Amino acid sequence: MMRIAHSVPQRNAESISMTTSLQQVFESRSVAVVGASKDPFKAGHQVVRTLLAVGYLGKIYPVNPNEREILGLPCYSSITEIKEPLDLIVISLPGKAVLSVMEEAAQRGDVKGAVVLSGGFAETGIPERVEAQRQLAEIARRAGIRVFGPNCIGIMNPELKLVTGFHPGVSLVPGNLGYVTQSGALGGSLVTLALSQPKPLGFARFGHVGNMCDVSNVELIEDYGNDPKIKVILVYLEGVRDGREFMRVAAQVTKKKPVLVLKVGRTEIGARATLSHTGTLAGADAVYSGAFKQCGVVRANTMHDLIAGAKAISMLPKPRGNRVCILTEAGGLGVISTDEVAASGVLELAPMSRETCEKLTALLPPMAMVCKPNGYVDTSAAAMAQEFGEAMRLVLSDPNVDMVVLNAIPPTFLPAMDVAQAIVPVVKECGKPVVTCFTVNETVVETRRYLEENGIPTFDAPDEAVRALAMLTQATFSVSHPLDDVPAAHHPILDGAIAEGRHLLEPEALEFLSDNGIAVMPHVLARTREEAQRAAMEMGGPVALKVVSPQVIHKSDVGGVRLNLQGREAVGQGYDQLVSDVKRAAVAADIHGVLVVPMAPPGPEVIIGMVRDAQFGPTIMFGMGGVFVELFKDVSFRVAPFDQEVALDMIKETKSYRLLQGMRGESPKDIASVAALLSQVSQLAARYPQIKEIDLNPVRVYENGYSILDARILLDE
Amino acid sequence: MMRIAHSVPQRNAESISMTTSLQQVFESRSVAVVGASKDPFKAGHQVVRTLLAVGYLGKIYPVNPNEREILGLPCYSSITEIKEPLDLIVISLPGKAVLSVMEEAAQRGDVKGAVVLSGGFAETGIPERVEAQRQLAEIARRAGIRVFGPNCIGIMNPELKLVTGFHPGVSLVPGNLGYVTQSGALGGSLVTLALSQPKPLGFARFGHVGNMCDVSNVELIEDYGNDPKIKVILVYLEGVRDGREFMRVAAQVTKKKPVLVLKVGRTEIGARATLSHTGTLAGADAVYSGAFKQCGVVRANTMHDLIAGAKAISMLPKPRGNRVCILTEAGGLGVISTDEVAASGVLELAPMSRETCEKLTALLPPMAMVCKPNGYVDTSAAAMAQEFGEAMRLVLSDPNVDMVVLNAIPPTFLPAMDVAQAIVPVVKECGKPVVTCFTVNETVVETRRYLEENGIPTFDAPDEAVRALAMLTQATFSVSHPLDDVPAAHHPILDGAIAEGRHLLEPEALEFLSDNGIAVMPHVLARTREEAQRAAMEMGGPVALKVVSPQVIHKSDVGGVRLNLQGREAVGQGYDQLVSDVKRAAVAADIHGVLVVPMAPPGPEVIIGMVRDAQFGPTIMFGMGGVFVELFKDVSFRVAPFDQEVALDMIKETKSYRLLQGMRGESPKDIASVAALLSQVSQLAARYPQIKEIDLNPVRVYENGYSILDARILLDE
Repeated sequence: MMRIAHSVPQRNAESISMTTSLQQVFESRSVAVVGASKDPFKAGHQVVRTLLAVGYLGKIYPVNPNEREILGLPCYSSITEIKEPLDLIVISLPGKAVLSVMEEAAQRGDVKGAVVLSGGFAETGIPERVEAQRQLAEIARRAGIRVFGPNCIGIMNPELKLVTGFHPGVSLVPGNLGYVTQSGALGGSLVTLALSQPKPLGFARFGHVGNMCDVSNVELIEDYGNDPKIKVILVYLEGVRDGREFMRVAAQVTKKKPVLVLKVGRTEIGARATLSHTGTLAGADAVYSGAFKQCGVVRANTMHDLIAGAKAISMLPKPRGNRVCILTEAGGLGVISTDEVAASGVLELAPMSRETCEKLTALLPPMAMVCKPNGYVDTSAAAMAQEFGEAMRLVLSDPNVDMVVLNAIPPTFLPAMDVAQAIVPVVKECGKPVVTCFTVNETVVETRRYLEENGIPTFDAPDEAVRALAMLTQATFSVSHPLDDVPAAHHPILDGAIAEGRHLLEPEALEFLSDNGIAVMPHVLARTREEAQRAAMEMGGPVALKVVSPQVIHKSDVGGVRLNLQGREAVGQGYDQLVSDVKRAAVAADIHGVLVVPMAPPGPEVIIGMVRDAQFGPTIMFGMGGVFVELFKDVSFRVAPFDQEVALDMIKETKSYRLLQGMRGESPKDIASVAALLSQVSQLAARYPQIKEIDLNPVRVYENGYSILDARILLDE
Repeated sequence: MMRIAHSVPQRNAESISMTTSLQQVFESRSVAVVGASKDPFKAGHQVVRTLLAVGYLGKIYPVNPNEREILGLPCYSSITEIKEPLDLIVISLPGKAVLSVMEEAAQRGDVKGAVVLSGGFAETGIPERVEAQRQLAEIARRAGIRVFGPNCIGIMNPELKLVTGFHPGVSLVPGNLGYVTQSGALGGSLVTLALSQPKPLGFARFGHVGNMCDVSNVELIEDYGNDPKIKVILVYLEGVRDGREFMRVAAQVTKKKPVLVLKVGRTEIGARATLSHTGTLAGADAVYSGAFKQCGVVRANTMHDLIAGAKAISMLPKPRGNRVCILTEAGGLGVISTDEVAASGVLELAPMSRETCEKLTALLPPMAMVCKPNGYVDTSAAAMAQEFGEAMRLVLSDPNVDMVVLNAIPPTFLPAMDVAQAIVPVVKECGKPVVTCFTVNETVVETRRYLEENGIPTFDAPDEAVRALAMLTQATFSVSHPLDDVPAAHHPILDGAIAEGRHLLEPEALEFLSDNGIAVMPHVLARTREEAQRAAMEMGGPVALKVVSPQVIHKSDVGGVRLNLQGREAVGQGYDQLVSDVKRAAVAADIHGVLVVPMAPPGPEVIIGMVRDAQFGPTIMFGMGGVFVELFKDVSFRVAPFDQEVALDMIKETKSYRLLQGMRGESPKDIASVAALLSQVSQLAARYPQIKEIDLNPVRVYENGYSILDARILLDE
């Protein structure tokens, strides 16, 4: 695992544009391997050996002052000695020697890129090594040299047969995938997994970013976005330094091509394993998930799924919708596929026309099960090749079918290749995505290769085939929402509280929300029993009283809330009791008054929160109110600011959506007003960076509008 | 997919014991293939050919009246003509011809088993074909012939090289797995998947049960349970006919050896694909899950996981606990493993001793990450073979480590085999389970084989390795609870209601529960305003009034409930209003009276239900009360009757457990009393089969005991 060092200054966008492009580094025509060695157990040996073995199309210069030749190549005592042009240096030396090599490279003036294999920099957390990495980056920046690493295996470019690392077993098969990885080992495994498919899935670029002292995962994604050779971008992600920059880049790139991400640290303990040295926020993984959705990035859950998704996306046409027909020769596989369609949350079974079903019934053997349920066709083992071809033609012709999964384990008396040959021309003709699962069997190896060579991806398992279609569908229909920049602003209420070194009092919070166009309940800050009574009488119905004091955060804990008081006497008595209870329970509390608000009618409750995420900045949370947030973690996150469309997505992501739609005969609630509120809060969060936290909890939702029952706004301390 | 035909009579346990054993069928020394053919596209040809190709150790008799020889073997015109002893017949003829062959087999007297490949029986749903299957079973039963199928690929016994089906590419490698499958194609794929492991996982028995006219999946599980050659039983399950019989068998078998099940139809639509012709109950999959837990069966979610679990269980010693150390050479893989440990719900990271951590730190390269978090060790790519061996020794020696996952992608300069050779002796010595993931790479093929030949299972992905350990752990620590038989009983309250053709009224339900030892609230059935007032005064605090009428099911809908009435006047007024409202809203309702109960204090609410499942009979549901049952499906099921231990498991399975433990400073509630109530309800459900449904909703739980706020008991109509 390569660890992210946060303390290193980053190259800014301006300086990047003036310096060497990453393309130039990937296209390097000459490589010096500094730290080349005769010892086969050293990385410096393996890099030279691999470049020779794969047939690098450029020149290789081993550098080692103690050797005259290595693996048949003349050896140089330093890069300064190399008299020919030098594009790239690969440094495999103990950490401390790296800087002087970088200085030499800077002096040469022609070096475009450096891959620093050596570890022992900022990932150690040792101040001196963090400083060394800063210096490394500084030398590079001055000289316009782009650095991969340190602590990385660098880059691969199959067209040039260029490889700088020591991952075993990678074949340099050119293709249209682009890899960005924060783990060399895992990234290399993804490449080998892709290459081990029946028809190897080649790649155009591989970049391991290591400690990211210069080139970051985000910059690499942006670069691949502009590279016409790359059709699908695959990212292994442990974390990003600047979440908002990532989103800005990803939102642009996903408009051009799909970005698939395997993000680890899904669980709290997994996140600790990822970032044990920086201490990431618990729950941040959910923020990543929200951010991915906002910028159209598709998330895969496993290494195998990532490659399955990349295969489907790189090989198949785009589907016109999400409706899948399961065509299966084997019931068991068909059921597994059907379960996965239902579980995907993305796909649905195709509602085929009656005509299609009737034609299939007429075509297939009597033991076939046709359209039970609709969209599911079990041909039975009695179907022969021609029937598979015809059945495929029928389902693909149905306008209600967007995609097809064909599962088969043809019995010994029906060669799998016959089935494949029957369906290939039909599939080629129709232009709809078709995937296959001819399960786990040496007898279908050749058939799978034939299918893939003819544009039909094959998968190891029926559930994997369906997940690949789900990712294809997500990549096709994902919408990327740009993250608008909102200029920071001041507001007198915030300024006033900051000046007094405290958070907003509840009436201030309500006023502030109201000033920003958010509907709040009528409320009066009463400073005496009589003021409270008068306010209550004016409001009419029953009221609630809430203590207002900068020292009291949890009002109920100190007896600072009285609910459902009706009538002058009850309000007066409630006021007196509240004040005396709070004075007793919180002796030091400075009571500014008592907030009088009308009791809100009943309704389902939601909660809206804002926190500032270490990576993504202002982040909005939405969920069902009460104890259920904690118990079910049924919440969704999006990065602020966003519009109502994104807000509606985030509501739909939670179970509250069904609750708000009206369950069990309840009337539908005003979901649009909640979406508007979420968007407004997100705008606030972006506009006022001095706000640290917002907590509207609960917000009660009605057929028309909502009531914010409690509002807390905390400011930066 | 083989479909289950429910209308066929089943052999009962007594007749089985008197007839041929399944062992005898698996050990058949002679096979007649009826419907043998010269046409290579016919199953009858392929079966003979396969038997010859694999070298079946018994005699093969092709039977076809139109041929003299097939594949070099003399052909018989009927099985009657075969003069030598005949153990097994494989029938591959059109459905209608099967019966006469069975009659001939019955007349011979020596035939022990029949595999009926032919489809076209009960799975068609056509009454005439259902009847033909019944006749087939009847002939077999009379003659003591055991039948696999119809509509199946039958059996395999690698020791004898016996195979009756037409699944392509199965090698008959003997081993200790036993397969039971309801899909021939999928079962065959599982076998080939197991055989394609670096060290092929062989098997002792394979049985595809097809339509189960005689041999059922449950009988096969029981038979494998008694077979000393079988160490792990793998089941592909679409459904069982008799869930209770399955549980009785499985509870016995899992005491002897692990049973792993891949049960499909997880989703409602998937279940429809499985059993489209019988219309299974929605939600029944959750009942299967509960039943599996009760009888110690381990559930796998995918084909690959099933084989991964079988590999771990068949190769590894039993762990002493659930604490896993992740030892990884590659951070990315390590994080994925860690995420999976946290997500498993079964495993936890090993809390290693300070001593172990210190020794590891001293041993490993400086860039290693040791015990951040504890239980997680990233050796870094700089570690060499000897260090892996030593690190493995250190973690295995720690008494807080029960199991180890080793992830590695050794770089080109460190041969994977060196790492393997360094760890094998250490692992062999310690007797703790160790699994490895040397990822996706042709360079590690040989290493993986070496590891597996030395007892260390290898997996394709770091998450799969962890799931395999989770299944091993479940198989080791699962407890099987026998399903007691409870004699059916009468109860005057039930008898009375049945005599009147109605369900229980609420006071009857309370009285019935109370008679069965369940605590119910004080309650009085008032027939007049004055009776209601007197009852309320005697109870003291505020009361609720509820109409009692056999015609009123949803009391609130007709104004039949009044809550929180305090004082004689309020109760009297409430009574009058209730009665007049109900009379207006439900004109035909026969009002038996009004139930007076004290208002229950507030507390968290749960729901307890009983339904009769089509497969499993009386089944108890537990969950959180209110709208959340529907929204979050946060419910658990168990098959009745069960004890408090099982009841506690089912409470722990839901989020209510944390709620009842006391969240956010709430006091812990009386979980034991809820477990007792669940167990009592389950006993009731078993004892009184005349009860169709029980609904205690909500049950409010307190620090001591609970209150059943509403009880509905429906009787069979």
